[in-house]
Amino acid sequence: MKATIVTIGDEILIGQIVDTNSGFIAKSLDKIGVEINEMLSISDDKKHILDTFAKLQNTVDLVVITGGLGPTKDDITKKTFCDYFEDKLVVDAKVEQHVIELIERVMNRPASQINKDQALVPSKCTVLHNQVGTAPGMWMKKENTVFISLPGVPYEMKYIVDQEIIPKIVREYDRPYIIHKTIITYGQGESLVAERIEDWENNLPNFIKLAYLPAPGRVRLRLSARGTDKKILETALDENVSSLNAIINDIIFGFDDNETIEVVLGQLMTQQNKTVATAESCTGGKIAQLLTSVSGAGTYFKGGVVSYATEVKIEVLGIDESLINEHSVVSGAVASAMALSVKKMMKTDYAIATTGNAGPSKGDSNAEIGTVFIALATPTELIVKEFNFGQPREKVVDRAVIKSLELLQKEILKNV
Amino acid sequence: MKATIVTIGDEILIGQIVDTNSGFIAKSLDKIGVEINEMLSISDDKKHILDTFAKLQNTVDLVVITGGLGPTKDDITKKTFCDYFEDKLVVDAKVEQHVIELIERVMNRPASQINKDQALVPSKCTVLHNQVGTAPGMWMKKENTVFISLPGVPYEMKYIVDQEIIPKIVREYDRPYIIHKTIITYGQGESLVAERIEDWENNLPNFIKLAYLPAPGRVRLRLSARGTDKKILETALDENVSSLNAIINDIIFGFDDNETIEVVLGQLMTQQNKTVATAESCTGGKIAQLLTSVSGAGTYFKGGVVSYATEVKIEVLGIDESLINEHSVVSGAVASAMALSVKKMMKTDYAIATTGNAGPSKGDSNAEIGTVFIALATPTELIVKEFNFGQPREKVVDRAVIKSLELLQKEILKNV
Repeated sequence: MKATIVTIGDEILIGQIVDTNSGFIAKSLDKIGVEINEMLSISDDKKHILDTFAKLQNTVDLVVITGGLGPTKDDITKKTFCDYFEDKLVVDAKVEQHVIELIERVMNRPASQINKDQALVPSKCTVLHNQVGTAPGMWMKKENTVFISLPGVPYEMKYIVDQEIIPKIVREYDRPYIIHKTIITYGQGESLVAERIEDWENNLPNFIKLAYLPAPGRVRLRLSARGTDKKILETALDENVSSLNAIINDIIFGFDDNETIEVVLGQLMTQQNKTVATAESCTGGKIAQLLTSVSGAGTYFKGGVVSYATEVKIEVLGIDESLINEHSVVSGAVASAMALSVKKMMKTDYAIATTGNAGPSKGDSNAEIGTVFIALATPTELIVKEFNFGQPREKVVDRAVIKSLELLQKEILKNV
Repeated sequence: MKATIVTIGDEILIGQIVDTNSGFIAKSLDKIGVEINEMLSISDDKKHILDTFAKLQNTVDLVVITGGLGPTKDDITKKTFCDYFEDKLVVDAKVEQHVIELIERVMNRPASQINKDQALVPSKCTVLHNQVGTAPGMWMKKENTVFISLPGVPYEMKYIVDQEIIPKIVREYDRPYIIHKTIITYGQGESLVAERIEDWENNLPNFIKLAYLPAPGRVRLRLSARGTDKKILETALDENVSSLNAIINDIIFGFDDNETIEVVLGQLMTQQNKTVATAESCTGGKIAQLLTSVSGAGTYFKGGVVSYATEVKIEVLGIDESLINEHSVVSGAVASAMALSVKKMMKTDYAIATTGNAGPSKGDSNAEIGTVFIALATPTELIVKEFNFGQPREKVVDRAVIKSLELLQKEILKNV
């Protein structure tokens, strides 16, 4: 089963917003064995939309479209979608009822005609219920291709994908298995890793594909197996992962199934009943923000101090001014004192602290741009590391955040 | 001048990473009057790449390709790019020198053959220098279409776009003008806004296009004018913005040229020499993180406390326990106390505080999921607001963050 994902909207084509919908849809479909052939972003233009549908007709099994379903004049997807199937728009009574209730409840006013028009759908389509918004999803088959139109608001799109589309495909279609296994390595560049595993890579069976995914500080190796016998795929993946492990055991950091480090860390900390606090300078709150992006983070994350200004380090975290004068504010000594201070202040088992110079210009220190000190206080130890993450600013912050979480994960794994 | 942006990589098609490159390239090209026709993500597959190039040939002036230029076997773009032009790969001496120096300096080891192979480029291409990585950009013209291949690592791609591609296009090609003007409204949904401005919208000249961009808590109206006479476009835009202003003055919050609120706010605070601190509960550090994502934030952002756990509110921010018991931790009283406390602690002019229940389950309070209290302490006032941002978690946090920054911006604008 092959699919193409189409996003409609000029705001994407002029770079005003980044399309995150396609990634979410791709991940959801990939998990149930639907192969994504292409992703496409096109403009809010009737001819462009119709031409695109016609080109995709019968070349893929599924076309998932997002965007352009709002109630305003510039949103032309629904009308165009309906035209493509030579159908007419009719009111869906159930959707109309839902729209009226939603507007009254959330907006505290009666639904207007423009609101009610959200309940117009092509007469032959299958309506996909949107509990969290007014624009329903629409499922329509023409010859060998199913076209699905979804609203572009991310959480509305997600609701319909999770609650309506995925269950419907699982129920109604046969699909092959696609299994991914991702191995996280760190400390060596992709070219070095590639050299070390060259023979192993050449001996992979043809139904397993390898991809290198370099990211700040680490390289992920993704193995993807595709076929109709799940058992065979799983066995082959396990065998190849274990032979890989024998070759580069020294740099393998972990495995994941597309789980982010903050999710994995959250599970570990919950299991072990440990808590953490943060004291952030150059990372500006991003470590705290990533940790709290996981629901249930309250179990292990107690809080943090963003000590961006030097005087906040002194006055809030209680860092000795003479320590700063002696070592500079970007130093291992200050990072250590920050970690110890916030750990005591928030009574946690672990504490992470960062201080550095993310650039582009120098702040309260002469440290080279890119320099970051990370300190981790554990129940029994204090670990401090110095890094130079180069440039630009966003890369320095991102690498410092990831490295901090990796340090914490590594320490916690010692207790497993 | 029309362009299509193509990203190559299975990691995008299975949803393992979100493509942010296309948005950056689109924004950069749009600014210099190049129209983006489509964006396309395709797989690391030779046939798929060649077919795509052939389809685009002579339909657009420019094809910008990212991804697949790494040194590993799964990266096949360069070889395929070269095949498409029936060219052969040759060593570029200048690139080779750069690769050797970069590897030695950053990796502290001699460059391997795999590294040096990064200097292989099609013999007829124009090399685009990549100062921050090993894979050069490649510019190649065939008939009426220029094809540009760029590395997929975002900061390498950005470097080449900013330093090489944009200057080259500006130097060598005539382009029309595309001018956007975005009006930010808040407090009313897009359907209501559309009703109010219907007549005005119907009277727009045909070279001005209107788009509605709804986002949590606000609707942005984007006007795009396209033509060859910059003066005419600017005059027409100004006239229409001012007639729009006369109609919906009560909900217009500001104007921007795609600047994010944190950038606009940073400029305002720097101009006025004001400082701010944050005390965040449900937003988990995201306000601090957004503020510090702007370079130069140290001038106005002093720091923050992420008081996720109730005991951190009590022990670090010094919130009275009886206040929490009386009003609940999710209350206007607690938000106010948090703002006042952090303002005093960090000696700032303004302070923002958030406390709420982002869900999916309830925490240390019985407040309904989605409830958020935001407090803003100014030099002379204390403002507290209650919101219900609904669900899911990420939407609650995002809306609370944006609303907080908007409140701050509104107060600061009073002094302008």
